[in-house]
Amino acid sequence: MPIVTIKMLEGRTDEQKHQLVKSVTDAVSESVNAPKENISIIIEEMKKEHYAVGGVRKSEV
Amino acid sequence: MPIVTIKMLEGRTDEQKHQLVKSVTDAVSESVNAPKENISIIIEEMKKEHYAVGGVRKSEV
Amino acid sequence: MPIVTIKMLEGRTDEQKHQLVKSVTDAVSESVNAPKENISIIIEEMKKEHYAVGGVRKSEV
Amino acid sequence: MPIVTIKMLEGRTDEQKHQLVKSVTDAVSESVNAPKENISIIIEEMKKEHYAVGGVRKSEV
Amino acid sequence: MPIVTIKMLEGRTDEQKHQLVKSVTDAVSESVNAPKENISIIIEEMKKEHYAVGGVRKSEV
Amino acid sequence: MPIVTIKMLEGRTDEQKHQLVKSVTDAVSESVNAPKENISIIIEEMKKEHYAVGGVRKSEV
Repeated sequence: MPIVTIKMLEGRTDEQKHQLVKSVTDAVSESVNAPKENISIIIEEMKKEHYAVGGVRKSEV
Repeated sequence: MPIVTIKMLEGRTDEQKHQLVKSVTDAVSESVNAPKENISIIIEEMKKEHYAVGGVRKSEV
Repeated sequence: MPIVTIKMLEGRTDEQKHQLVKSVTDAVSESVNAPKENISIIIEEMKKEHYAVGGVRKSEV
Repeated sequence: MPIVTIKMLEGRTDEQKHQLVKSVTDAVSESVNAPKENISIIIEEMKKEHYAVGGVRKSEV
Repeated sequence: MPIVTIKMLEGRTDEQKHQLVKSVTDAVSESVNAPKENISIIIEEMKKEHYAVGGVRKSEV
Repeated sequence: MPIVTIKMLEGRTDEQKHQLVKSVTDAVSESVNAPKENISIIIEEMKKEHYAVGGVRKSEV
């Protein structure tokens, strides 16, 4: 039942996302002893114009 | 004031979304006795590549 | 697979929450033609000190 | 370390978003005494078809 | 209509939260030209055990 | 910069949470080639009364 949301900048390949959900599911399953089929993962990509640290967006760096 | 966020796979028709926000607003309003005008609903669509259950993305099923 | 998050001020009774998840699940299921067992609902309660409209928190109204 | 998420309807200019992250970062930094470099801001834009108040989407108003 | 969510570690005073919602509301209102009464702010506090950077929780630093 | 949010039912031990953030950070870092120090993880616990699948809350099962 854990629901995992991963926010990251866009630009990763489909293969990286494939690996990401696979390995994060394994990590959660083993850590909290949850069956894999109960674990959901949502990837939310952000544009560089929409993410800022210290008041400066990544599109402006 | 309830704020409802609905995450679902993309692909629903505009008519389905119309019905969705209407009926969910009614359901929330009646259940917790809140005026409809105080209820906000946000629909967030996910791509099949970005949603996984059991470590497998919907785009890979 | 729709995942519904409902943020609202704390203070509702357990019976209201029971009714809320039941009727919202029905509303989502019928609107977008999703099996009920695929619909998850998360209730997130907010304290009045932690919710503001127009710059004024509900605890200060 | 504060993580600020701003959900709003799409349509703002890049200049407005530039100003938004800058001034919100300043506001958070001063209010809770956090170094600016520790403050992250995420802008999430919504389509008018995906945001409703009172059961009516902004695309239907 | 902007909805702002601020996640931060618990421990701020009520006065700091008062100032936070006030100044962030002003910052958003001026930056994107939105009436203040349309701006909602949600504060979500995290425990140190529940927030990690670099794989280390703040409770373990 | 990936920000990972993990929602799960309350009840896990501190040791499980320690392991969870450690192994998820490793999994994300390796999958998308991000430095560990750029990865934030937020754990959000849910009460059984506040999480439902199929219209039935976990507190009612």
